Parts: sequence; structure tokens; C-alpha cells
Amino acid sequence: MQVRGVDPIPEPGEAHGQAPVRRLRADQARRVADVLRHQIHTGAFPDGLPSEPSLAEEFETSRNTVREALALLRDEGLIDRAPRLGTRVANRKYDHGLDALLGLQETLKGHGTVRNEVRAATAVTAPPAVARRLRLEPGERVVYLERLRYLGDTPLSLDLTYLAPDIGAAVLDLDLAGTDIFVLIEQVSGQSLGSADLALEAVSADPHTAATLETADGAALLMLERLTRLEDGRPVDLEYIRMRGDRITMRGSLSRTAPEWKVL
Amino acid sequence: MQVRGVDPIPEPGEAHGQAPVRRLRADQARRVADVLRHQIHTGAFPDGLPSEPSLAEEFETSRNTVREALALLRDEGLIDRAPRLGTRVANRKYDHGLDALLGLQETLKGHGTVRNEVRAATAVTAPPAVARRLRLEPGERVVYLERLRYLGDTPLSLDLTYLAPDIGAAVLDLDLAGTDIFVLIEQVSGQSLGSADLALEAVSADPHTAATLETADGAALLMLERLTRLEDGRPVDLEYIRMRGDRITMRGSLSRTAPEWKVL
Repeated sequence: MQVRGVDPIPEPGEAHGQAPVRRLRADQARRVADVLRHQIHTGAFPDGLPSEPSLAEEFETSRNTVREALALLRDEGLIDRAPRLGTRVANRKYDHGLDALLGLQETLKGHGTVRNEVRAATAVTAPPAVARRLRLEPGERVVYLERLRYLGDTPLSLDLTYLAPDIGAAVLDLDLAGTDIFVLIEQVSGQSLGSADLALEAVSADPHTAATLETADGAALLMLERLTRLEDGRPVDLEYIRMRGDRITMRGSLSRTAPEWKVL
Repeated sequence: MQVRGVDPIPEPGEAHGQAPVRRLRADQARRVADVLRHQIHTGAFPDGLPSEPSLAEEFETSRNTVREALALLRDEGLIDRAPRLGTRVANRKYDHGLDALLGLQETLKGHGTVRNEVRAATAVTAPPAVARRLRLEPGERVVYLERLRYLGDTPLSLDLTYLAPDIGAAVLDLDLAGTDIFVLIEQVSGQSLGSADLALEAVSADPHTAATLETADGAALLMLERLTRLEDGRPVDLEYIRMRGDRITMRGSLSRTAPEWKVL
């Protein structure tokens, strides 16, 4: 359905230099960079990006603006630029599903092998805030895991995990280096996962975390805090996951089927 | 259901200094900081954080580790520390729903008034990649909006929006400074929103964006790319939204109701 009976679109603004408010080139460059960023992530440029003049035409903007947009993307590490060779995609990001409870390994199959460097796997007394979220008594012991997760030689994420005591004790005997924690939880509990609460933030990498993830000090990280419950509703897995911002995009779809929202 | 028939949890590791692998203090500090970060976000410390000794006890760790954890949170701008006064929450973040199509204003009602500085509102020829996503013919014109969104005096996000031509033309006559775009789209289309595709990334703020959002160069931003469709399935709204990482957390819940996932 089209909207009818409205005024025609006003005359071109920015594109032809007639914007009501004068626009800075940096604003125009950001606009161009954002569209290109999404195209890069979705694999639109296997043979490199179009030339500056053709991008300038596509975006109805100047070559200087295009050049500034490409500089933004280069500074993010997304593209390489070289004279004669043109502009190539330096690094694609990997998509991680926001809308289903899949581990990284399951998500990235097809891209390579995910292996986990297990940095800690031990029992600790649950800090009170952790105990509350896992619905344990104060002072109960939980299993704490810390895993640095690689795809090939690249560290993608650093995962801190608190598991309910029974699940955690069983999981400690299994292949933590080679298997997603979700798979292990379903295996030892005999249940499917039922639900999860997610909180996503962008944080800057502190120096020690940056070194661990082999990225720059202060690099933007996607931080996921996730409480996962079994089918029967019991919360068993509280995780704090730091993903490299230059390697992971979280994607999902929402659909409204009255009265509720449903993930597609 | 508890998992039975598994070995008891092994003896305490890290907490009592008996970890199988020697743990760096920085790793322990990160673990403490992550739990505290979530508590800060959820408003657990209205009167300030507990003292260092009591945090050391809660986390079964040393005061030095607690001090390092608090330094991490201070560097993120989450807490202030002062001798005698103790440790206070400097800034709470605002929660933005991942699991429903709500605008910022609707989301933050109760926290104050969201106002939008309209930096651009004009027609542009859709770049080919934008035209494809909005299912328009190459060369069709769209309406481009750029809004800097404030809660009180604090800029929270910078939103770049491409609207389908009919929707965009109608929306241009309305209160873009005071109303969420979702509300305006539903108003002019006479339809509810039906679905959306989301991609979330963490990116570092380039200098111009940082200045616009009144944050530090290189600060971590949460970047949301979202394509929204009307009830009838037509994509009408493509947005590139940069949120200040120190001000916004995106939250959602997932629930599996076989065979699909559903947002709670």
C-alpha cells in the first residue's frame, strides 16, 4: 500500500548542494560509509570496491567525500587501499545469530573450526549477584569457566561462564576445548535450552583484554551478558562474552504476530 | 531437574589460590568487574558500591584484585571513586529493547524527554544498495533524515534514516524533532510495523562522530543497522543508528516454543 494524497517530495537537497542546512563533508562521508559498510559485511564486493568516480556517482556526491568515507572504513580495518590495486575488502565479519540459542561453533560451521583455549575450569563460591541470577543459595558453589575462542588463528571472543553446580560438575569432564557450552549443557541435562535473557553493550577493550583478544587497546568490543535457562525454566548458565567488534556482527529478525513478537 | 550421577565438583581452584593454571590478577579483576557491571546497570547500588573488603569477601579474592576491578569500571566511566566518599555509580545506562519495535522516545519515557535535532531532512536519489533493500527501482528518490537524539542534554544516538518515497514525503511535514520515526510511519501509512532485520556491531567513534555525540575519540559505539517493514511486508525504513556505548544497553529475551523462537 502506498501513502497517497501527500505533497510530492521536495526538491533535492544535499545531493545537489541545496540542503536547507549546510552539511559538512564528514557528515556526507559517514552516510556513504554506512551503506558501504553493510555491503562489505554481506559480501557485496568479492572483487574489490567500485572506483571512486563510480561511488561518487552512486551516492551523488563528490570524490572527496567518497575518499573520506573510504578512509573511515580503512580506519575501522574493513578495507585496504593501494594505488593501482584499488580498494579491497580486508576483513569480513562473521554473523552471530541474535535470535536463536546457538553456540559460536554451531554458528560458524562452514567458516572453519572453532577451538577454545580453556583458561579456567574450576569451582568457585558464587558471588551473591551470580547466585541470585542462577537461583542458588548464598554461598553455593558454581563452576566457573573461562575460554578464549578462536576461529582458525584469530581470537574472536573471550567467554566467562558460571554454571549451576550439577551442570557444571558434569560439564567439567567433557570436551570444553572443542564443543560449544550449549551443546554440553543439553547433553548433560538431557533437556533442550528453553529461554535466555540478553544484554548487549559496546565497551572499549582494557589493555589486558585487548592483548588477550589480539586487538588494539581501546578497541570496540561487543559485550553480551546472557542468562540461559533449561526447558523447565531453571537458569543454569550465566555468561559474560566479549566479542571483537571487528570480527562479529550480531543479527536477528523480529516479526510481529499479534499480540506477540516472534523471532523469524 | 538436577543432573545426577556425576562426580562432585572438584576442589576450589582460583578462589583459594589453587587454580590448575596460574591466573593473572587482570583476569580475576575482569571477572569481578563483569558481575559488578551488570549490577550497576540494573540499579543494584543506589547508595554506592560496597567497600573493598566486603567486595573482596563476596568474590573470594584479594583487595588488590577488587581495586583493579573498580579501576576498570572507573575507566569505563561507570563509577566514581573518592577517598572517604567511597565508590558511587557515575552513570547508569538506559535499556533499549531488542525484542520489540519501539522508538527511543517510547522506550525511555519515564527517564525524561527525548528530543531530536534534525540535521537533514531531504530527498536524495537512493544509492543502489539502499534502493535494493527498500525494493525500489534504481534511481528512485527516497527521503533521507539525519537526527541527533538527546535525552535531556545528553546526546544518546545519531540516526541516519532512508524512507520509502511515499512514506518519507508524508513524514517530512510532521514533527520530526519531537516524535519517534516509528510512530510517524504508522501514522502516515495507517499500518502497524510488521517486522525488522537487525544487525548490531561495536565500532569505534571517528573524531567527527565522537564530537557530534559529545564522547571521546575512539569511544565504543553500538551500531544498529535496521530494515523495518510494514505489516504488509513492504520495507519502508532503513536506518543506521550509532548509540553511545556508555549510555545504552540493548536488552531482549528469547524463548523457544517449538519449533520456533519467540521473543517474550
